[in-house]
Amino acid sequence: MQDLSGCDVTIVGLGLMGGSLALALAGKVRRLKGVEASREAASLALEMGLVDAIIGLDESVESDLIVLAAPAGAILTCLQALGGVSSNRQVVVMDLGSTKARICAAMETLPPFFDPIGGHPMCGREVSGAANADADLFRDKTFVLSRLNRTSEYAERLALLLVEAIGARPIALAPDLHDRLVARSSHLPYLSSVGVVLTGDDLQDERFWQVAASGFRDTTRLAGSDLTMMVDILLSNQAEVLQSLADLQAHLVELSELVSAGDPAALREMLVRARDSRQNYLNAKPQP
Amino acid sequence: MQDLSGCDVTIVGLGLMGGSLALALAGKVRRLKGVEASREAASLALEMGLVDAIIGLDESVESDLIVLAAPAGAILTCLQALGGVSSNRQVVVMDLGSTKARICAAMETLPPFFDPIGGHPMCGREVSGAANADADLFRDKTFVLSRLNRTSEYAERLALLLVEAIGARPIALAPDLHDRLVARSSHLPYLSSVGVVLTGDDLQDERFWQVAASGFRDTTRLAGSDLTMMVDILLSNQAEVLQSLADLQAHLVELSELVSAGDPAALREMLVRARDSRQNYLNAKPQP
Repeated sequence: MQDLSGCDVTIVGLGLMGGSLALALAGKVRRLKGVEASREAASLALEMGLVDAIIGLDESVESDLIVLAAPAGAILTCLQALGGVSSNRQVVVMDLGSTKARICAAMETLPPFFDPIGGHPMCGREVSGAANADADLFRDKTFVLSRLNRTSEYAERLALLLVEAIGARPIALAPDLHDRLVARSSHLPYLSSVGVVLTGDDLQDERFWQVAASGFRDTTRLAGSDLTMMVDILLSNQAEVLQSLADLQAHLVELSELVSAGDPAALREMLVRARDSRQNYLNAKPQP
Repeated sequence: MQDLSGCDVTIVGLGLMGGSLALALAGKVRRLKGVEASREAASLALEMGLVDAIIGLDESVESDLIVLAAPAGAILTCLQALGGVSSNRQVVVMDLGSTKARICAAMETLPPFFDPIGGHPMCGREVSGAANADADLFRDKTFVLSRLNRTSEYAERLALLLVEAIGARPIALAPDLHDRLVARSSHLPYLSSVGVVLTGDDLQDERFWQVAASGFRDTTRLAGSDLTMMVDILLSNQAEVLQSLADLQAHLVELSELVSAGDPAALREMLVRARDSRQNYLNAKPQP
């Protein structure tokens, strides 16, 4: 198998992620079907030509590949529903959920004809819905693949072909490690963003918002994220989120002590560590 | 006085701020002189045509307006030096420092022929130096003016004309209030940014940087700020910085408790507060 051109793919959930995946896969698969509970979103997807047909979840097992493109909580519900479906063919099922440990654990319990693998493309937008779908959403972005003990080489190959087809960069991570990393790269930045906004809001002074400039804007951008998604993510990655919050608090205590001591050299040393460490992020990314 | 066309202006410090101010004032003042301790930076300023001449700080009192465009610590040193200069004409002196309480207190002690007023344009770049100067750096940005008891109406008028000439939006704030607001709009976002980077760095895992995406990038952008400037700012606004850190920590404790309790509705309530509060920032800014 060199590409996905012989594959029937079903995308479950046609929001920003699912819609963008449909656009990115257009013309690269044999048939593209969608499962979408919202009648409005389903009509929009057909109008936009994102998929060839809207089908029920139970019909999705007629595809070669099912991609669950829903929030983490909804993916767990889908997996439970798929557990009750039967088929006499092998079906690869992959998800795009923001946390991996709980989802991969649920995938382990799927009937044997399923061939599951976890996935998580590291991209997002402040907007949602298929109306904002973008064929380039995944381009040059890191795409995490989390294999299970039961994942076949075939499923892994199919997942890699999908990642390649949409222009993303694959990285293999065990589910637990994925959740530890994203707690600190994504969930903690969201929570610190929320905390910084509220610390400004505490002043209850309109002038605060006038004085806030681009540094505030960028540092708190994530506070505007979709809340249903964020609550779902935070609670489904509870242990790692709590540990990362505790670690952040320890660093803030250290910063307080250094500012309080008023020793410029010692304070600078800690700030240098952060500045130099962040350079690792810039080095790891393709420069535009 | 309708504009600055009759004014001799001296800018002390020809880095990013001073250089950008020079560009923004070009053709709008009678004469533009610069004070710059670094020989290299002085040559660059003359080459770039930023100022008509480089003079010594003691000669700056021959101007109508002196603008101190140095880091907060260097401004205090300049004010001390100006305290030893004499003149028989009135000279308005204004600064562009990032904190106001200490600087305005030092301005109060200047000889009577000085007519001082504090200033702080709310803009910044990750780059520094006159080579990165931009005539539009101040355009549509908030520009804080902090009057002292001794500030004359003339000085206030001159400061407002300067703010207008460079396309910024003036806002009057008492020095203490300025420092309270910027601790939370600027210094705390920097420190939270540092803390988030270090929490990722704690993992000592290269894959962390690959998994980090645009949310991490924006939330931690400030960790790349100029450290000499930041150490200077943090220590010159010590009390408010410590209070804002304590307030942030209280919010993080509350977030930990809510994530730990696992009650989606209660968690969501706090996140909604932050999201809606941030809207105040967006509403206060001119949309591009």
